[in-house]
Amino acid sequence: MPTYTAPTRDARFIINEVLDLASYNNLPGFESATPDMIDTVVNEAGKFCSEVLAPLNQVGDKEGCTRHDDGSVTTPTGFKDAFEQYRESGWGTISQPEEFGGQGMPHVLGMLIEEFVGTANQAFAMYPGLTGGAVAAILAKGSDEQKEKYLHKMIANEWLGTMNLTEPHCGTDLGMIRTKAVPQADGSFAITGTKIFISAGEHDLTENIIHLVLAKTPGAPDSSKGISLFIVPKFLVNDDGSLGDRNSLQCGSIEEKMGIHGNSTCVMNYDGATGWMVGEENKGLAAMFIMMNAARLGVGIQGYAQAEVAYQNAVAYALDRRQGRALTGPAEPEAQADPIFVHADVRRMLMDAKAYTEGMRALALWGALQVDLTHKGATDEDKKKADQIISLLTPVIKGYGTDKGFDVAVNMQQVFGGHGYIQEWGMEQYVRDSRIAMIYEGTNGVQAMDLCGRKLAQNGGAAIQTFFATVDAEIAEAKKVEAIAPFAEKLEKALGEQKAATMWFMQNAMQNPDHLGAGAHHYMHIMGIVSLGLMWLRMATVAQAKLDGGAEDKAFYEAKLATARYYGDRFLPDAGALRRKLEAGADTMMALGEEAFQTAA
Amino acid sequence: MPTYTAPTRDARFIINEVLDLASYNNLPGFESATPDMIDTVVNEAGKFCSEVLAPLNQVGDKEGCTRHDDGSVTTPTGFKDAFEQYRESGWGTISQPEEFGGQGMPHVLGMLIEEFVGTANQAFAMYPGLTGGAVAAILAKGSDEQKEKYLHKMIANEWLGTMNLTEPHCGTDLGMIRTKAVPQADGSFAITGTKIFISAGEHDLTENIIHLVLAKTPGAPDSSKGISLFIVPKFLVNDDGSLGDRNSLQCGSIEEKMGIHGNSTCVMNYDGATGWMVGEENKGLAAMFIMMNAARLGVGIQGYAQAEVAYQNAVAYALDRRQGRALTGPAEPEAQADPIFVHADVRRMLMDAKAYTEGMRALALWGALQVDLTHKGATDEDKKKADQIISLLTPVIKGYGTDKGFDVAVNMQQVFGGHGYIQEWGMEQYVRDSRIAMIYEGTNGVQAMDLCGRKLAQNGGAAIQTFFATVDAEIAEAKKVEAIAPFAEKLEKALGEQKAATMWFMQNAMQNPDHLGAGAHHYMHIMGIVSLGLMWLRMATVAQAKLDGGAEDKAFYEAKLATARYYGDRFLPDAGALRRKLEAGADTMMALGEEAFQTAA
Repeated sequence: MPTYTAPTRDARFIINEVLDLASYNNLPGFESATPDMIDTVVNEAGKFCSEVLAPLNQVGDKEGCTRHDDGSVTTPTGFKDAFEQYRESGWGTISQPEEFGGQGMPHVLGMLIEEFVGTANQAFAMYPGLTGGAVAAILAKGSDEQKEKYLHKMIANEWLGTMNLTEPHCGTDLGMIRTKAVPQADGSFAITGTKIFISAGEHDLTENIIHLVLAKTPGAPDSSKGISLFIVPKFLVNDDGSLGDRNSLQCGSIEEKMGIHGNSTCVMNYDGATGWMVGEENKGLAAMFIMMNAARLGVGIQGYAQAEVAYQNAVAYALDRRQGRALTGPAEPEAQADPIFVHADVRRMLMDAKAYTEGMRALALWGALQVDLTHKGATDEDKKKADQIISLLTPVIKGYGTDKGFDVAVNMQQVFGGHGYIQEWGMEQYVRDSRIAMIYEGTNGVQAMDLCGRKLAQNGGAAIQTFFATVDAEIAEAKKVEAIAPFAEKLEKALGEQKAATMWFMQNAMQNPDHLGAGAHHYMHIMGIVSLGLMWLRMATVAQAKLDGGAEDKAFYEAKLATARYYGDRFLPDAGALRRKLEAGADTMMALGEEAFQTAA
Repeated sequence: MPTYTAPTRDARFIINEVLDLASYNNLPGFESATPDMIDTVVNEAGKFCSEVLAPLNQVGDKEGCTRHDDGSVTTPTGFKDAFEQYRESGWGTISQPEEFGGQGMPHVLGMLIEEFVGTANQAFAMYPGLTGGAVAAILAKGSDEQKEKYLHKMIANEWLGTMNLTEPHCGTDLGMIRTKAVPQADGSFAITGTKIFISAGEHDLTENIIHLVLAKTPGAPDSSKGISLFIVPKFLVNDDGSLGDRNSLQCGSIEEKMGIHGNSTCVMNYDGATGWMVGEENKGLAAMFIMMNAARLGVGIQGYAQAEVAYQNAVAYALDRRQGRALTGPAEPEAQADPIFVHADVRRMLMDAKAYTEGMRALALWGALQVDLTHKGATDEDKKKADQIISLLTPVIKGYGTDKGFDVAVNMQQVFGGHGYIQEWGMEQYVRDSRIAMIYEGTNGVQAMDLCGRKLAQNGGAAIQTFFATVDAEIAEAKKVEAIAPFAEKLEKALGEQKAATMWFMQNAMQNPDHLGAGAHHYMHIMGIVSLGLMWLRMATVAQAKLDGGAEDKAFYEAKLATARYYGDRFLPDAGALRRKLEAGADTMMALGEEAFQTAA
């Protein structure tokens, strides 16, 4: 059976040494996040995830969820107990506002726990996972009454939340939704329609479920400008907070999916259900984006989370399984064969995984810090810069992170040879589970267009200039350190490819917007490669300084330096090829009409 | 429900126009393969696969195979009837020798039919699929008596064959097998041991199953030099050809796999089963490689076969599903949204799939022609050249073909957005089914080492020089054609990267063989990119000539030219990045010891 050990040493390295979270202790919420507190949280969360959640991962996959005739849903064996423990330990409250019962600690910590939970058991993670987005939307757009009524229980995970966007005929293009919201005399709305792909839409983990539902009021514009957001609880909530009537909504069926079987992905039927508008009429899209951005970062984490656990198990297998001999001569002559760990091609896949997961962890946690600084930064300038960085990074973390995370999961399965294809070993589940992250919360094509069509151009390109200035400055600094300079130069070259690609877009996209669409995926990957490169530059710089300072944990820091060099050798070169593809533009891509794609007999 | 239309127009283009099979009609077996005959075979086979096999693909996935308590296995509903039709139509006999009841036609045709069958239903294709390898081994190494006894029935598909190599503790490293073969007084052997991952190991499609089993005789060397090959029939065969006693072998269980559920992948237990040695004692590895090479080409086809059917269904979905608007303005203003086909990122994925599948089809069929010419070439020089080319191309077709084929299947699933993750649509099955092709018959890492560690160096690099000379000559020719010259120049650049990478290996691998292991995967992909580039050069050249000649089917040829240009823009640039990675060598890849890979808490 596959196992999982939370990478707490690496997490502490990133938080304490690379991000140096302690240096922000003048900011609200950060003062309590002392290194000691961080150690405690990281270690305890890691233990819970390894010992309680990970053993349920295959159970969830095998059993799936069961919908009963009355529309109720039973989660897999053990999920309810595990969720009780999760709730009681308050793992979902870490970075939620104290005002509503949260612990008010930095998002950096909340995000890390999300990683551990998601790595141990992605299907489980998605029960509390979407609640974060729902809470964020209510916090930003809800009335005081709504906040008071729902947030305490949601943050305490006594109730969970969902996001109801997609309908059978529309997902990306939410302007087309058909779910209706008809105003009632008491100020509420009667919600009617069908939503699909609703993660955690129905389950037995909590006594109530708070659905956030996109719908259209009568006469609303027939576009994304006509969408409103509603709170539609499974059980109506009385003014004293007790539960009232069962609302007219039901899980119609559970989707049969490729993976994440342990999560109940529901078709939700709303049949005149009572709902309350969140924020302004027809401004639902903005509220939805608040949910969505939180969810997108969460999905980005899922990308490397599945890669991480697949990697850990591939390492164990590579050290255990013996086939053939090292090309350089038998590594263990007394044994009948060497562990496959000695083979360069196996090592290639493991190093790729290591360079990616550690780099992505640093990127996601740096991103989470920007989320914190957007609200809590010491100066307006700090807040603005943080907002620019995270708005650019969100589609990169989600899109590049999950594309590459899936690739890594596939490679880790490959390390197992034929056994990787057999269910019992668990590797194929990681591949199936991680596949969804490239799709939901906006497909990676949508992420690429969000990055290139929206974020790059915003405010005259201010955000990307901030990003370039940040990377430029750190490269210049790193070039002064002899041991790091070679890597910094490689990163500079890759950054140059990104700058050139950006320029190419500026010069060509006006003339033909398809040039942007044709290159967006390539651009997102270039930026992912450069962003991870920046993380490796930082990690290498810190590691070198620690070694120079005579740190005790020498092997750990030397591994960071070696992995950075590997990243320079094996990841950065792709930036140039991607730029060449991008600069080929849309002409050959869009040259053929539909007939040319239809199979001629 | 997904559908499949055999790409018969493209197949006829490759066989009749690009390979110009008619020009080989002076060779034995080719004379009967007239364009008319080819048209008939291609169209009839295509019809059978589209109409009979494709509709059973989801059935097989859902039902899987059932093992009964007596060890017998029932295949999914419809498989037995479909197999009857397959057998009666003689689709498995096309390129088998007439001497044993085959039709003696070129492998090119046999391979194409293998593609159609495998595209329609990979799990089904693997019942007759492995028989080809078993037949090849008996043809090459069996005694006259063995040939007479088994080949007629096997070629007629009245009996099917299997390949029993892998054991629980060894797959790649077959020198470690433990299955024993003890000589009996009558010249037979008593075979005892356990084999795993045996495709079509037990089923209800034929009255007998002929297992080819690797085992060790008493006192045999404890390495791959101590392996012998045995024929071990499920039912012993009497001298008159009738079936005798049930042999002491049984399917112990059916593996639970990620995909190809419709094929019964068995654990086979041999308990003193009666077997007969094929060829010489301790020379089983050579016989095994004959089976294996045939099987590897078959697996290479599977790589693009699943991509092809996934592509066809993605095209249909992209034309049907409406979300958003073209960046260049509404394509269908009267509708609420445009088909997603208008979006450049969707088109990117479709064009990638088109360029890959059509290129791979050409490469596989060109490869099949080399298999024919190896035996039937007009001169010894022709035979030698063909042998060199196919020996190089086999790992490339298998390794690059299935790596990229899986990527394409994943992309085609991506076109469906969330619906791609739902089982009902069938796209996730293509991803699961195609995943195995990167693993079996030698993982793609093994293919890369076969290419770089064995094939490149053989006979002083004669084969790769032949390959370079072939591509060089065709580029030189193509540069004379104005319309093709730009593509030829791009291919020349990519070929230059391959030549440089080859040179780098020559200069560095002796000093440290791990340099070869570290770059083998990259090299295999460079060669895949160049090989497909050569195919696109040929297809573009033929298409241009047809257009210049005023051909009627203008749109078809123009699409070929446009797709070649796309290939030049979007595939060829990767060769340079891969070369840079390769030239980074093994140092950073092998720098870290096992402790650095173990998760530190």
